[in-house]
Amino acid sequence: MVEPDPLRHHGDVEARGADLDFAVNVYDGPRPPWLDAALLASLDDVGAYPSASLARAAVARLHEIGEDEVLVTAGAAEAFTLVARLREWRRPVVVHPQFTEPHAALEQAGHAVTPVVLSAPFALAAGDVPEDADLVVVGNPTNPTGALHPAAVLRSLLRPGRLVVVDEAFMDCVPGEPDALVAVRLPGLVVIRSLTKHWGIPGVRAGYVTGDPAVVAGLERGQTPWSIGTTAAAAVVACTSPAAVVEGRRRAEEIATWRAHLSQGLSTLGIPFQHSAASFVLAQVGAGVREELRASGIAVRRADTFPGLDDTWVRIAVRPPARTDVLLAALGSLLPVH
Amino acid sequence: MVEPDPLRHHGDVEARGADLDFAVNVYDGPRPPWLDAALLASLDDVGAYPSASLARAAVARLHEIGEDEVLVTAGAAEAFTLVARLREWRRPVVVHPQFTEPHAALEQAGHAVTPVVLSAPFALAAGDVPEDADLVVVGNPTNPTGALHPAAVLRSLLRPGRLVVVDEAFMDCVPGEPDALVAVRLPGLVVIRSLTKHWGIPGVRAGYVTGDPAVVAGLERGQTPWSIGTTAAAAVVACTSPAAVVEGRRRAEEIATWRAHLSQGLSTLGIPFQHSAASFVLAQVGAGVREELRASGIAVRRADTFPGLDDTWVRIAVRPPARTDVLLAALGSLLPVH
Repeated sequence: MVEPDPLRHHGDVEARGADLDFAVNVYDGPRPPWLDAALLASLDDVGAYPSASLARAAVARLHEIGEDEVLVTAGAAEAFTLVARLREWRRPVVVHPQFTEPHAALEQAGHAVTPVVLSAPFALAAGDVPEDADLVVVGNPTNPTGALHPAAVLRSLLRPGRLVVVDEAFMDCVPGEPDALVAVRLPGLVVIRSLTKHWGIPGVRAGYVTGDPAVVAGLERGQTPWSIGTTAAAAVVACTSPAAVVEGRRRAEEIATWRAHLSQGLSTLGIPFQHSAASFVLAQVGAGVREELRASGIAVRRADTFPGLDDTWVRIAVRPPARTDVLLAALGSLLPVH
Repeated sequence: MVEPDPLRHHGDVEARGADLDFAVNVYDGPRPPWLDAALLASLDDVGAYPSASLARAAVARLHEIGEDEVLVTAGAAEAFTLVARLREWRRPVVVHPQFTEPHAALEQAGHAVTPVVLSAPFALAAGDVPEDADLVVVGNPTNPTGALHPAAVLRSLLRPGRLVVVDEAFMDCVPGEPDALVAVRLPGLVVIRSLTKHWGIPGVRAGYVTGDPAVVAGLERGQTPWSIGTTAAAAVVACTSPAAVVEGRRRAEEIATWRAHLSQGLSTLGIPFQHSAASFVLAQVGAGVREELRASGIAVRRADTFPGLDDTWVRIAVRPPARTDVLLAALGSLLPVH
């Protein structure tokens, strides 16, 4: 069994056994019937070896890019492993605080990571990244801060001989996605996406990489054969359909409404929090509050396992207002009387 | 797109569009109802992150070994990748002809493989392997030869500082499995198993590694998080149940009967073939016969992509007698008149 590693700590562990889960960043609503139908229909095909061809074509069609700019992966997690093993990185940089898997995958592949640790409000400037970085990994919008970096800032990170990897796992929370780079073809740029969060299927390992065809081809060369299962491939096709585009946009707008309710509640309680473009809010509730919430059956995500944050911060998943109100009431009861 | 590589050629490609498929080595019968039920039920759980814990415990229980001797993997393919990346192998040896994925995975990881190429009847002697090999990969029974190596011969390959990997993906074709090493705990020995073939679910990426706990822990350290999807984990649990053990044994005996029918037919036609312990038979039909069969809608697996074999050989999947008779009739019509 593998030893515990803070970089490998995830919200799913914290949610176990909780009455109310604000720890896991998965969209909190029923799966669309067309997605359930696609998952079910995929079981008819598991008697054949899986193929990601249709899924690849579907992603290319969705983003109006070439199939040579797409690699379907077994979740974003596989994409991080493939990036980590792509080259003998000389100076791989991970911009923190952010989802820790890319950092962990780089260490797992034997690389020493240079962290660039931003401070609140966690905005990135091109000068924050060391000039000799040959790999830069940055989330947009970033988990757990919710910070949305302008596309122009991310483009300004590009250099000859450098690969910039933008993790857009939560970009589908942003209505219209004006800062998305998923469909931008530039040398040395790739984007990673996941179906996990927006479509509520973390158990189906489905994600994809888009971008520079030379990099995509290199990542594909590192992929284990048949790594995309039949059900995952079917999910990719379903979640890139016109119906999915409409529903995805609706979800993004709903998340924005739910998030506004949470933010307003935190403001009212006087709890500092970060402006977020994603399906979670990073809030500075103070040390010990997370444990007290947990004791009352409410799980929020600890943030002290993210480089650059400490135990005064927690990440709160955006949920429907009625559920959020339970959390806000619990937070209110835990605050010192003014 | 990745360039064609003979080591990465597989029967699923050859089966596409054929009327009759003798190319893919998957059990040719309906899935058991309990397996279909487990796959279906797993879809209820895909809203949570996947966990392989129950699957790991189930495999340990099946083979009466410790959980520290088990790693569940996304098919045998992931296991080969993990083995290839486990160490900086100095002299990795693959015993051929055999399933080419372990060799391809080693090359993919940057290693130069020393092939040990056996000649018909493809029996392995301990002396065939170079003394300085620090990794030896051997299939048992071997795909595509069908050769079943005695457990004692495989054990005799063990050395301090050497890892022996036995691919038992087809061992469940052998009633009683007397030469299986899956439950044997010895330093430097691991066994790889797959659910793909016997249970007809290549689209669900599910397999496992058993053996030396230190090696298992090392392989686990290389694994991508959540690499076992929810459906795959459920399939592992289902296929290690007492009902599965009974049905697995029945299938093994049925395959033996079907194989005897095929072997008898090949004998009658005067076509040389290898005695097989698995769900396929390696036959020397002569050059050009595969293409002629394919032109008549029948797919058999080309064997010239396996090191040590040429285009006079084909691998024929074991099928029910009525289907086999169609193949035998076609083969008979293609033979030169004596």
